[in-house]
Amino acid sequence: MKAKVKRSTRRVKASVKTRAASRTKVMQAALKALRTEGFAGTSARAIGRVGGFPPGLIYYYFDSLEVLLLAAIDMTSSARLARYGEALAKANSVAEAIEVSSTLYREDVQSGHVAAVQELIAGASSSRGLRTEISRRIDPWIELAEAQISRFVDRSPSGALLPVHSIAQLVVAMYVGLETIAHLDRERLKVEDLFGAGMLLAPAIDDLLGKQDGTR
Amino acid sequence: MKAKVKRSTRRVKASVKTRAASRTKVMQAALKALRTEGFAGTSARAIGRVGGFPPGLIYYYFDSLEVLLLAAIDMTSSARLARYGEALAKANSVAEAIEVSSTLYREDVQSGHVAAVQELIAGASSSRGLRTEISRRIDPWIELAEAQISRFVDRSPSGALLPVHSIAQLVVAMYVGLETIAHLDRERLKVEDLFGAGMLLAPAIDDLLGKQDGTR
Repeated sequence: MKAKVKRSTRRVKASVKTRAASRTKVMQAALKALRTEGFAGTSARAIGRVGGFPPGLIYYYFDSLEVLLLAAIDMTSSARLARYGEALAKANSVAEAIEVSSTLYREDVQSGHVAAVQELIAGASSSRGLRTEISRRIDPWIELAEAQISRFVDRSPSGALLPVHSIAQLVVAMYVGLETIAHLDRERLKVEDLFGAGMLLAPAIDDLLGKQDGTR
Repeated sequence: MKAKVKRSTRRVKASVKTRAASRTKVMQAALKALRTEGFAGTSARAIGRVGGFPPGLIYYYFDSLEVLLLAAIDMTSSARLARYGEALAKANSVAEAIEVSSTLYREDVQSGHVAAVQELIAGASSSRGLRTEISRRIDPWIELAEAQISRFVDRSPSGALLPVHSIAQLVVAMYVGLETIAHLDRERLKVEDLFGAGMLLAPAIDDLLGKQDGTR
């Protein structure tokens, strides 16, 4: 009897694990479809073809295609958000923060994260509900930017006067804009060069923030 | 004979004028359709309905819907570009330039220019050709930003060291990003507040540029 319960618990645990893995597989296929087929081409059929499973599997885990796409973006975004937060926490100056962001942005492009997000933003244009959901998902990025900017600004006594929340919104907007422009034509805008320019400007900002605290 | 020639010239001139007005009417209807129906809903039929003309009229003036949409965006963009150039030329500091931009941006939102551009950028995602065309159309805005930034930077001797072209690209990216985020949910991001924040920051930038030329 005891052995039987143990075995059945193990079986349930294994099935939960399989279920989670299968659900993740569907979300990964959705992201890949967004990247390769674009939003307009990301049908249940296309996702199934990309992932090598019957399209019906989607509806076993998700109520609709829209719910799947949002869950998939949440999965990749929360992973990226954690990675940015961790890496940026180690930066000790604006210059270092830009350098770290440059590396992470390259990862975003290479992994296809940027392409998937851009396709979803573009596709959201045609759906009021999707637009609101995407919009809500920008907030954690603004919070992250705000926390990071605060770290540098709080060092100077006049930092309290700076509109940190607005600056964070502007930084995130710049990021979104860069991704949009780069997604239009990756040859025309070299985002890597822009991070280089940012690094040229950073010492002046660091200087300004440093000067404000009167230690120089 | 002479009178006949005069009259026929007048008639040709009048017909050229009518033709241009009719072509403009088609472009204006296309912009309105982009705003009200979204990119996905902007069919020849929808444009005709919005403008009150038979959809076939579109193909009398334009080879395809894509050609019409690009011509329509060119029409509104070149008007806005001229307006920005003229107004910004009168700004004598970064603070004034941001104040002017704030007013012009409000015009862009109210006239529906932002909405039409955003819909076209979103729609471009599904068409490689459209993406490249839209991307090319961002260049004049980067040039405008570069010319304006140069005016302020050139005042300081160390200005030559600043990556003005990259800064211009970052400013335009920020603008595009703000429009994208605002288009997702106009309640969530108050772009007007961000211009206010920019105006708070501007004196520091003006100060920095002023300080560099050693006159203070």
